[in-house]
Amino acid sequence: LGARQAITAPGVSADVVNIREGPVSLETVYEEMVAGPGILEQVALAEEEGYDAVVIDCFLDPALRAAREMAAIPVVGAGEAGMLFAMALSERFSIVTVRNGMEAVAALTRAYGFVRRVASIRAVDFPAVALVRNDEAAANAMTDVARAALERDGAELILLGCTGMSGLAALLQRRLDAIVLDPAACALKLAGALVELGLRHSRIAYPDPFAAAGSGRERVQP
Amino acid sequence: LGARQAITAPGVSADVVNIREGPVSLETVYEEMVAGPGILEQVALAEEEGYDAVVIDCFLDPALRAAREMAAIPVVGAGEAGMLFAMALSERFSIVTVRNGMEAVAALTRAYGFVRRVASIRAVDFPAVALVRNDEAAANAMTDVARAALERDGAELILLGCTGMSGLAALLQRRLDAIVLDPAACALKLAGALVELGLRHSRIAYPDPFAAAGSGRERVQP
Amino acid sequence: LGARQAITAPGVSADVVNIREGPVSLETVYEEMVAGPGILEQVALAEEEGYDAVVIDCFLDPALRAAREMAAIPVVGAGEAGMLFAMALSERFSIVTVRNGMEAVAALTRAYGFVRRVASIRAVDFPAVALVRNDEAAANAMTDVARAALERDGAELILLGCTGMSGLAALLQRRLDAIVLDPAACALKLAGALVELGLRHSRIAYPDPFAAAGSGRERVQP
Amino acid sequence: LGARQAITAPGVSADVVNIREGPVSLETVYEEMVAGPGILEQVALAEEEGYDAVVIDCFLDPALRAAREMAAIPVVGAGEAGMLFAMALSERFSIVTVRNGMEAVAALTRAYGFVRRVASIRAVDFPAVALVRNDEAAANAMTDVARAALERDGAELILLGCTGMSGLAALLQRRLDAIVLDPAACALKLAGALVELGLRHSRIAYPDPFAAAGSGRERVQP
Amino acid sequence: LGARQAITAPGVSADVVNIREGPVSLETVYEEMVAGPGILEQVALAEEEGYDAVVIDCFLDPALRAAREMAAIPVVGAGEAGMLFAMALSERFSIVTVRNGMEAVAALTRAYGFVRRVASIRAVDFPAVALVRNDEAAANAMTDVARAALERDGAELILLGCTGMSGLAALLQRRLDAIVLDPAACALKLAGALVELGLRHSRIAYPDPFAAAGSGRERVQP
Amino acid sequence: LGARQAITAPGVSADVVNIREGPVSLETVYEEMVAGPGILEQVALAEEEGYDAVVIDCFLDPALRAAREMAAIPVVGAGEAGMLFAMALSERFSIVTVRNGMEAVAALTRAYGFVRRVASIRAVDFPAVALVRNDEAAANAMTDVARAALERDGAELILLGCTGMSGLAALLQRRLDAIVLDPAACALKLAGALVELGLRHSRIAYPDPFAAAGSGRERVQP
Repeated sequence: LGARQAITAPGVSADVVNIREGPVSLETVYEEMVAGPGILEQVALAEEEGYDAVVIDCFLDPALRAAREMAAIPVVGAGEAGMLFAMALSERFSIVTVRNGMEAVAALTRAYGFVRRVASIRAVDFPAVALVRNDEAAANAMTDVARAALERDGAELILLGCTGMSGLAALLQRRLDAIVLDPAACALKLAGALVELGLRHSRIAYPDPFAAAGSGRERVQP
Repeated sequence: LGARQAITAPGVSADVVNIREGPVSLETVYEEMVAGPGILEQVALAEEEGYDAVVIDCFLDPALRAAREMAAIPVVGAGEAGMLFAMALSERFSIVTVRNGMEAVAALTRAYGFVRRVASIRAVDFPAVALVRNDEAAANAMTDVARAALERDGAELILLGCTGMSGLAALLQRRLDAIVLDPAACALKLAGALVELGLRHSRIAYPDPFAAAGSGRERVQP
Repeated sequence: LGARQAITAPGVSADVVNIREGPVSLETVYEEMVAGPGILEQVALAEEEGYDAVVIDCFLDPALRAAREMAAIPVVGAGEAGMLFAMALSERFSIVTVRNGMEAVAALTRAYGFVRRVASIRAVDFPAVALVRNDEAAANAMTDVARAALERDGAELILLGCTGMSGLAALLQRRLDAIVLDPAACALKLAGALVELGLRHSRIAYPDPFAAAGSGRERVQP
Repeated sequence: LGARQAITAPGVSADVVNIREGPVSLETVYEEMVAGPGILEQVALAEEEGYDAVVIDCFLDPALRAAREMAAIPVVGAGEAGMLFAMALSERFSIVTVRNGMEAVAALTRAYGFVRRVASIRAVDFPAVALVRNDEAAANAMTDVARAALERDGAELILLGCTGMSGLAALLQRRLDAIVLDPAACALKLAGALVELGLRHSRIAYPDPFAAAGSGRERVQP
Repeated sequence: LGARQAITAPGVSADVVNIREGPVSLETVYEEMVAGPGILEQVALAEEEGYDAVVIDCFLDPALRAAREMAAIPVVGAGEAGMLFAMALSERFSIVTVRNGMEAVAALTRAYGFVRRVASIRAVDFPAVALVRNDEAAANAMTDVARAALERDGAELILLGCTGMSGLAALLQRRLDAIVLDPAACALKLAGALVELGLRHSRIAYPDPFAAAGSGRERVQP
Repeated sequence: LGARQAITAPGVSADVVNIREGPVSLETVYEEMVAGPGILEQVALAEEEGYDAVVIDCFLDPALRAAREMAAIPVVGAGEAGMLFAMALSERFSIVTVRNGMEAVAALTRAYGFVRRVASIRAVDFPAVALVRNDEAAANAMTDVARAALERDGAELILLGCTGMSGLAALLQRRLDAIVLDPAACALKLAGALVELGLRHSRIAYPDPFAAAGSGRERVQP
């Protein structure tokens, strides 16, 4: 996707790779689990080849924590990055995703502890694969669902809940006169910022699975 | 493990299977991800062979949600079952696990929304593999850590946070004069109860990944 | 109620007793308070007569904590057990109860810390006494209210919020094509499991009111 | 107790009555349940005799919700009132109570949803009955426990968690150079304010148990 | 406003002062910030002139924490006092305010940690300035919005979310047959109670900005 | 501060301005309120002069929401940005700040809803002014306090809670072998990313105070 490259800042370049084997699209936790080992393989490869950071280009953040445990370079998920940017720009946002993905997206917002900042999760009745084509029917369906979130759920901003929807962000933003966030763009920017600041993930939070004693902590408060 | 069979009720029998390929022990999210496809394979096999229910015998509940999406029979995780029983018997409990597993256990309690009922997560400085041998050194280390949770963190009950520790539950309970829960036993009992009541998991919560339109819902509140 | 006996597992038997004096039905906190001493009397009697466990057969869990403090055998409440099973089978469930009981049920979910897992509490406009008769009008009203919870509130499972509704669970489940949980059945299974595992409630959480120094703790975190 | 009268404002007078039968002190939920019917009897009597409001003079707020359902005049609990005043004067407070009462107090803060504002609950190893005598030993023990809450738990204010401790508030405040709140005084002031403003409890929140249809609501969010 | 004086109890008198310079009405956080220094000036003046307490007569509690840090006499905000009284009288309440103020009111309920007790925040499409005139059109609009909160959001009590609405409380209460709280009245009563009890705000929570070492604490838990 | 410029990415430049009048340092809410109008003045000026974004260079995010309401360009606070980056790199972080600032920092984490992700807030006993000099004594004190957060509070990452501490981040990171985040750097990166993506704050969340009808919403959920 050339679109991904276009988002990067001067001095930054991004390469897009596919996992070698996996589901056509990731919408359920099942598909996430099936795709997991393939994602970890690519993260390991990226680190070996000297990339500065990895972005997992799927809103469900598949294998994200596992990749952070495994890798020594920053790994950014589109879902988490999108939610962080959404919280930087609004008090409560809604996520618009595909039908099969709603339950997994809800589980993600719960796992991150961002529940209080999420107005609702709504879904368009289109498979993820069709959305990537970005045709008029998809755009119309997306507009309706996002408008319902703004008008009925108290959303102050729309976060696209599937990275296959990236191409629709600008169009939706014009139609709705409200901010529509593309999570893939947020993830690329966050990854760039982490690299520029020389930061990586906390080894205490994501202990190295190949080390003997984990983070060495005695006690954790949930 | 014959111990697993001993826990079952009259009229119930349990078989223990290992995944064909995977990490020696599951302590980190990385290992959980690596073990995932193997677990899903065994769950599919169990369903095919006519088992009534599946218990995933690991406290981290690896592949649990994915297995529920995939399977039509109930799938119970030791972690979730152990926490439900702990909440049935106390107001606030602590989880005692192994060093490498603390961060993943904390993420689990967050994902389930049980944070307010967890006093602390503490770890013994023994690898999971050594704990299964249940020797005196392991028992002593476990006693010390559990006692710290009871005396310093306000724990009212100890939940063992690794199914490799099952053999130590009774001994610890005697030594500490406090309830020490074996999550594997809880999971077997919960699975039995679900089968007896003819219950399975909500298809709305865990939509079939092979169905076209997921749960059919338009909107979810996190 | 022979229905209660039918739920038990092989080797388990249950006797149903009524309190000697009390309100016709328990719907408000007032009625719960009035019924309290009579419930405690029966729990004490059951313990004296050698029963292994007690189930309080009312969704509001009247006198539950008090009974746990007083008794040395496990005491299980239908409300708490129903909610634990509901969380084992779904991410978010709704409770369907009677009009007078909604506020008390909401207070219960708050007290247990399960708010995040409850989609809504809805009520049928029938007194509890009429529901026990399980006639067609009651069934229709229940169906409508449960459907509203599923379609409008995001419920993934219906938990019956009154043990007088037990007889309707199977019928509702067929009509709604969604899981409908009978809390009394969950409580009987949970009590059976606790007895089989040799477990009782934490004395630290529920200190003996006849002992001098309570749980002996210096400090508690809410 | 003349002390209770001394707290009232000009134009307000308070009478103190005891329940006719009940436990010597209320420290556990069991004792609260046993005392319940006697408290409701006195509340009904007070309403009949034309009192403007009732204060339940026990920190555990025994029978509070039931009394509000039953009565048409405002009913104020010392625990709830004390916590409301504590939140008006600090961001996080600790409650100092007696050993047997800590678990019940913790349950109260959870039921009211004030958990985030409570730094800790600590107990003095004195029975409630002894505290009422307010002797030097009691005062010293209270000082030590309150100081631990301020220095170790992050408390910004001490709320006395037993109305038998009222007589010690002023002395403790001087010794600790920190605010020490007497919950009985807060309750009397709150009751006075409600009467002066012509307010009573919401009938929707606390529906009349003798009315047919409760609050008439269809749906409640926990 | 003579109305403010009418609320006070026997032996209490209140004077109303305006800030010397500031926005016509306070509806947004911007206006709150602009009005801040003027409010602090009046609080300092009041303390100098020997007043026993200060009430900030605006629902948004502008400059409240800053004033508490600065002053040695109690400072009460109408918003906080109104919410405390609302929680004393109901389990969940809705706040009715003006259009521009909803976001700032929502931020306030979040900052105080009262989110779980707030059913909704709704707004009437009238500027605050017009509401003070209390005419029929304003009353009708308020009635409609408050009724929507009671019928659709599960509110059990209405808290007026703008002290310019005080004059409408009694009329709305009659029309809606539900409690309608005037936050300014609550604040005056709370301030009176604090003075009578000899209480002020915790210096640990609101450290003196002119002192060298703040509250002297080493560690705070959020 | 040239240090601020050094953080920016290629193609981005930053100018540092001081407010014309205000407290020497911002540590309390009082000082924040006093500095407010001066900050709003500079934000308005920056917008007028054509700047793309504004960073408020203080951890307490003074006047942040007000500035977002007032301005049409993105306004980023160091505190909020620092916390967002901290959550991107860890599960639970601690904030190290100055004595006078702890209470205000705690209030900030509560207002943003990030409480569950904050392990603790600890303070060094140095005034903010002295920290800017970054001498050895300051560095040693900071090291001790940060180590206590890592070892005793379960912190997985240290977020500096005062932008005057920026110069110490790299040194502390080396000494502690844990990530030490400079919030000012995070804010500059976040502002740059927002500008590059063409994003600004949600007008629904931060309504224009000069517009008649705010965000036009009827209802908000806290």
